[in-house]
Amino acid sequence: MSPDKREKERSVAALVAPDILDLLESEPASIAAETEELHPADLADVAELLPRELVPKMLMALPRERAASVLEYMQDELRSEVLEAMDPEQAAALLSGMTPDERADALDEMDAETADEILEELPDRERAETERLLQYEPDTAGGLMTTEFVAVPDSQTVEDALAAVRTIARAGRREAMGTVYAVNREGVITGVLSLRELLAAPEGTLINEVAWSEFVTVQATADREEVAQLTQNYALGAVPVVDADMKLLGVVTVDDVIDVIQEEQTEDVQKMGGLEALEEPYLQSGLLELLKKRAGWLMILFVGEMLTATAMAYYEAEIASAVVLALFVPLIISSGGNSGSQATSLIIRAMALREVSLADWWRVAAREVVAGVSLGVILGTLGVARVLFAQQLGLYDYGENAGRIAATVGISLVGVVTFGTLTGSMLPFALRRMGFDPASASAPFVATLVDVTGLVIYFSVALALLRGTLL
Amino acid sequence: MSPDKREKERSVAALVAPDILDLLESEPASIAAETEELHPADLADVAELLPRELVPKMLMALPRERAASVLEYMQDELRSEVLEAMDPEQAAALLSGMTPDERADALDEMDAETADEILEELPDRERAETERLLQYEPDTAGGLMTTEFVAVPDSQTVEDALAAVRTIARAGRREAMGTVYAVNREGVITGVLSLRELLAAPEGTLINEVAWSEFVTVQATADREEVAQLTQNYALGAVPVVDADMKLLGVVTVDDVIDVIQEEQTEDVQKMGGLEALEEPYLQSGLLELLKKRAGWLMILFVGEMLTATAMAYYEAEIASAVVLALFVPLIISSGGNSGSQATSLIIRAMALREVSLADWWRVAAREVVAGVSLGVILGTLGVARVLFAQQLGLYDYGENAGRIAATVGISLVGVVTFGTLTGSMLPFALRRMGFDPASASAPFVATLVDVTGLVIYFSVALALLRGTLL
Repeated sequence: MSPDKREKERSVAALVAPDILDLLESEPASIAAETEELHPADLADVAELLPRELVPKMLMALPRERAASVLEYMQDELRSEVLEAMDPEQAAALLSGMTPDERADALDEMDAETADEILEELPDRERAETERLLQYEPDTAGGLMTTEFVAVPDSQTVEDALAAVRTIARAGRREAMGTVYAVNREGVITGVLSLRELLAAPEGTLINEVAWSEFVTVQATADREEVAQLTQNYALGAVPVVDADMKLLGVVTVDDVIDVIQEEQTEDVQKMGGLEALEEPYLQSGLLELLKKRAGWLMILFVGEMLTATAMAYYEAEIASAVVLALFVPLIISSGGNSGSQATSLIIRAMALREVSLADWWRVAAREVVAGVSLGVILGTLGVARVLFAQQLGLYDYGENAGRIAATVGISLVGVVTFGTLTGSMLPFALRRMGFDPASASAPFVATLVDVTGLVIYFSVALALLRGTLL
Repeated sequence: MSPDKREKERSVAALVAPDILDLLESEPASIAAETEELHPADLADVAELLPRELVPKMLMALPRERAASVLEYMQDELRSEVLEAMDPEQAAALLSGMTPDERADALDEMDAETADEILEELPDRERAETERLLQYEPDTAGGLMTTEFVAVPDSQTVEDALAAVRTIARAGRREAMGTVYAVNREGVITGVLSLRELLAAPEGTLINEVAWSEFVTVQATADREEVAQLTQNYALGAVPVVDADMKLLGVVTVDDVIDVIQEEQTEDVQKMGGLEALEEPYLQSGLLELLKKRAGWLMILFVGEMLTATAMAYYEAEIASAVVLALFVPLIISSGGNSGSQATSLIIRAMALREVSLADWWRVAAREVVAGVSLGVILGTLGVARVLFAQQLGLYDYGENAGRIAATVGISLVGVVTFGTLTGSMLPFALRRMGFDPASASAPFVATLVDVTGLVIYFSVALALLRGTLL
């Protein structure tokens, strides 16, 4: 077996977990010192490996600020479970040490009643801040943003601003600290500059002379995909979030954007696999939940696929008089499905990356027709060879009509593969045009669309070529 | 039509492009002033919309530093084309204004001969730096890193370090400026602290007292996926890259990590669609290139799928005596493929996110058997209903054996869907165990594996239930 890099990377947490388990039973007080050198992300991974009921005990054994950091890195599901298991005061103490956006997320994911109890226990300032953040939908810029950012009056001098930044930095950690935002008296954002630019600015100049006046902002109500798109397009470290009056409300940091990109991508892959996107990681999803997400599409596809039985019944007389025709049915329709699956994956991904827009549909169609015919000719040739070789080698006796049967298979494949390729490439455009997610154009969806037509193409070609001989 | 957000976002560049096109023809000298307020990323998008031969003209109309920024945001393909079209001195002048990592990437993607000519024209310092970076494979940490980072001696005081940072900041832009790296006399990394922490540190303390001594590093030869994984796990803004002696060589910034994540995901989606990953965006890929990436897998799948014709031939006598059996072949085998496609997508994604490791295979298998049987029962019930309703409503006459045919369809579906689900979920494990990419377990691959077995299951059930009646 080739060494598996991915396995190796799990090792930090896996190595330490047994020791921590021992300490939790023998000497919990020593855990803080023993784990001092571990990154909070590693401790969060350790928590995933421990029995659930021991995780609160481990957190309580850590200094409060450190426990709060560990919670920030913990997976949503475990975090909710752990916080719900603690008493509200303890949970509130840990939550108040978290960054405002993570705190709001943690409460948002919990059972609403427990979340309210914990909210009650938060210090006034944190409670107000959290309640403000909880007003935004989790999948909007407002739902992603943190309120801990550095803003300075745009009329300040560079030195005053730097002194202010220093004070803020000493007061505690600020996530979005690499960028400094200049605001006017109304709190409206008027400029952006990096901490580096602030450091490099000549002394004595005013902030509004050195800050960039052209900057990217996003509305608090904007979809999280828009935030991700802006961050990538402009290679930003953080995106300022504003209200309708351009007042600066918060900042979305790039680590949250990476999470958004991953989550969106997971949704796309799952939709492309022909199921509804899961809300939780695979192994954490309940079996019933898993079945619900899968059964729906599977049933729809099955009902669609029932049309193949109808189509087959329509050609029953032909099959009865030339059973040999039935033999190639799976081969031919699957070729349509496979070529369609290739085309649809290409287009869905190109759309997700904004390489292809709705207006490009005809360019794509033109290319895919050429691609489909070419691929069809390749597979058609293989299909013809298959029939003729089998005949030649005596593996199967197609009788005197072997040539016609080979031609039927070959020509059908050209038609089916071309149709499959075109359908697969156009379906994402059609879905998007109708306001659906193009990623719903799953391989099974395309295959279902193509199968019935594939049968019709195949039997039509057979009727044309074999009438008077086999049929 | 629902308003399409994605289309709207293209608008900045699309709005400006016509004006810039006019200016290029009438008054190129005014372009710099006219586009002053545009973000370089937007100008890069404008370049994509212009006729290719006009792009160098636009770049030459901009101040050199700005043109270099635009090149950094430009897509690889256009950038190579534009640089290759310029004379080497002009190209070198632009490249020397780019960040070292982008400069090396740009040269790496170009025609090797032209790249060498341009390299010759670079100033000595930039040339040496670029040649050093070009030694690393593009898909390693070394290939991604920039050499413009801020390192300070760990024995310095906070004030001295801050003064040094200030000097570096004033000397020009540094990408990886949010984090300061402490190094010893040998250049070995000994600590990491954020610029914020440096600002917040009490005056008079030494860097090695305030810097974090536990930090994440990556070897220059490490795969880019490892860099992405570390960045995400630890929510880093930048990852320091070291050699075997822990000497600090460079820094990978988070914007490059986002690009890596996107590219890896694109590869996964394309593999899952049953084709080889493309090297360039869909619309930029040549048609021949596109066909090559698709024909290979399509032919392999076709040859695999030929076994269905063999299997069908094996049951030819049964089909001849009960043509009705042939009618349900596409419905039954597609159900196996669809359920397999769902399972394989779930597992591939869970593996990519490290939610599931090789050791979890039996947990997954246990869940998927239960899921498969449940989904099989659901589809089987629908299948039975289909046969009985058609009989009842007189849509098709299955004769006196309608009940047995319905049972054959129903029981086969349970078997086929269970087998499909299990095969689909285990294939990514098998591929990874053998050292292949689990994402190669495409929906078409799974369907091909499942189709032959599906036929065998179906006809075996039919033989068992219908022998003595229809067969």
